[in-house]
Amino acid sequence: MSGAVTWIAADWGTSHLRVWLMGAGGEVIARRDSGDGMGKLEPDGFEPALLALIGEALPEGQSTPVMICGMAGSRQGWAEAPYATVPCKPPSAGQTRLVGTSDPRLRVRILPGVKQEHPADVMRGEETQIAGFLALNPGYDGIICLPGTHCKWAHVSAGEIVSFRTFMTGELFALLSRQSVLRHSVPASGWDEGAFADAVDRVMSRPESLAASLFGLRAEALLHDLDGTAARSRLSGLLIGAELAAAKPYWLGQQVALLGDTAIAAPYRAALMAQSVPVTLADAERMTLEGLKAAQAKEETT
Amino acid sequence: MSGAVTWIAADWGTSHLRVWLMGAGGEVIARRDSGDGMGKLEPDGFEPALLALIGEALPEGQSTPVMICGMAGSRQGWAEAPYATVPCKPPSAGQTRLVGTSDPRLRVRILPGVKQEHPADVMRGEETQIAGFLALNPGYDGIICLPGTHCKWAHVSAGEIVSFRTFMTGELFALLSRQSVLRHSVPASGWDEGAFADAVDRVMSRPESLAASLFGLRAEALLHDLDGTAARSRLSGLLIGAELAAAKPYWLGQQVALLGDTAIAAPYRAALMAQSVPVTLADAERMTLEGLKAAQAKEETT
Repeated sequence: MSGAVTWIAADWGTSHLRVWLMGAGGEVIARRDSGDGMGKLEPDGFEPALLALIGEALPEGQSTPVMICGMAGSRQGWAEAPYATVPCKPPSAGQTRLVGTSDPRLRVRILPGVKQEHPADVMRGEETQIAGFLALNPGYDGIICLPGTHCKWAHVSAGEIVSFRTFMTGELFALLSRQSVLRHSVPASGWDEGAFADAVDRVMSRPESLAASLFGLRAEALLHDLDGTAARSRLSGLLIGAELAAAKPYWLGQQVALLGDTAIAAPYRAALMAQSVPVTLADAERMTLEGLKAAQAKEETT
Repeated sequence: MSGAVTWIAADWGTSHLRVWLMGAGGEVIARRDSGDGMGKLEPDGFEPALLALIGEALPEGQSTPVMICGMAGSRQGWAEAPYATVPCKPPSAGQTRLVGTSDPRLRVRILPGVKQEHPADVMRGEETQIAGFLALNPGYDGIICLPGTHCKWAHVSAGEIVSFRTFMTGELFALLSRQSVLRHSVPASGWDEGAFADAVDRVMSRPESLAASLFGLRAEALLHDLDGTAARSRLSGLLIGAELAAAKPYWLGQQVALLGDTAIAAPYRAALMAQSVPVTLADAERMTLEGLKAAQAKEETT
């Protein structure tokens, strides 16, 4: 590790904690992560979990700012950072929740999530990725799609999140492929582009066919030796097709920025491009860091 | 226990084993069950599991017929009883698989399941419930719906299963309500008829809304204190609504016999009656036993 740590950026989700030790010039001195996600911590477990990851790097005799986004700010998290409400800019400095700590070397702030009253929806963490994307693409007007366990579609205009909608597609895929009867027919990896595209098409044109198509994967494996790679791709296509059918008011006639790692974003990109939607890919982790940097920079100037 | 056991009826599913000790006059001498389902047994574990339940009741010095339906006849079960193919009568005597046993007091036969080539589908156990229903209602022409973990819709005419389709609705409900993020908002019991009916209506008229509506249950609980009973009923309504939208070619303009226990069948009945579909309820366990009795009676006369 070289250079002095001047502040710490942290993405604290349900299942992970990821931190960047930041230098005075905006450079990343080190990146670390652990499995100490919000989901397994009581409120008094957050400070020890953070110190376990970064304690030895903290300068003595001063307090180092820590800027956190994600589920650590939920009611079940470290300390609640109440939601901002759409339409709104992604929350930034001035809206953070200052959290008391036992260790005087820490000055911890948590960024709020964003909520929508009707239809009811919430995000925590994705708003910071959106802020990062907007910091790099000021003036962007269009859709930002953030695939993952709970995929978010956000309409962004004039620097604000106008509206958004959440889909449980990633979680459904994980439950169905690992814990349902389909686990016998769907392997953990493998990709068949044609099987994926066919399934997306089928469900987009007849959304009601989703319910009837799922067990068919198992039956085709039993009766017609359906290949595991095809089964996995078709399951993904059925679920993403159902999501695209429902999210059509978001992407139709719009440009879409996909924020996600390649493995998660690639099928969304393929499905959207098949609908002639212009798609830009951006790295989700980089957007998180850019969003935290933007919030910290503003914090320092206010 | 009174009277001599002349044969044994058995329903052997993935997670349970249920047996009836039958007397010479067709009466049930005793009913027993255990958790020794096919899912946790190796092929050589079936005979001991059966003997653990009925061994002491077997007359000595003769072999007692055991008629089995269900997953015990699958490839991963005790011994494979290859599927009959629709259109066909529910499999009966003459199509059973005779299984060798170590204990000479047993003469075990397993009934085959039924398969459909296109669209690919399979059943094991439900065909025996259908046989039981037809034994009690000869000449029935219409739809038989068998709700459960994997709900089956079968078109029955002239004593034959003409076609059928399987929906994973029960398994989806269990996974979503117990293992997904919705588990925080969906309690294990409670029923709100209005919330159920509204959700069925919404998804039947716009099937693509299912994907967008699931996470909304969590968000409404967080933001608007959505009642747990309403959340549970709405989740059930969304999933059953999606199933009814897909199964419409089955029930539209038909009479429907629902074979299931009351708790599982009641929401299906309410949703179908809201569509003005004439519905008859029949007890699934009784139909299983009637189906096994019909097969055994035929076995004895052939």
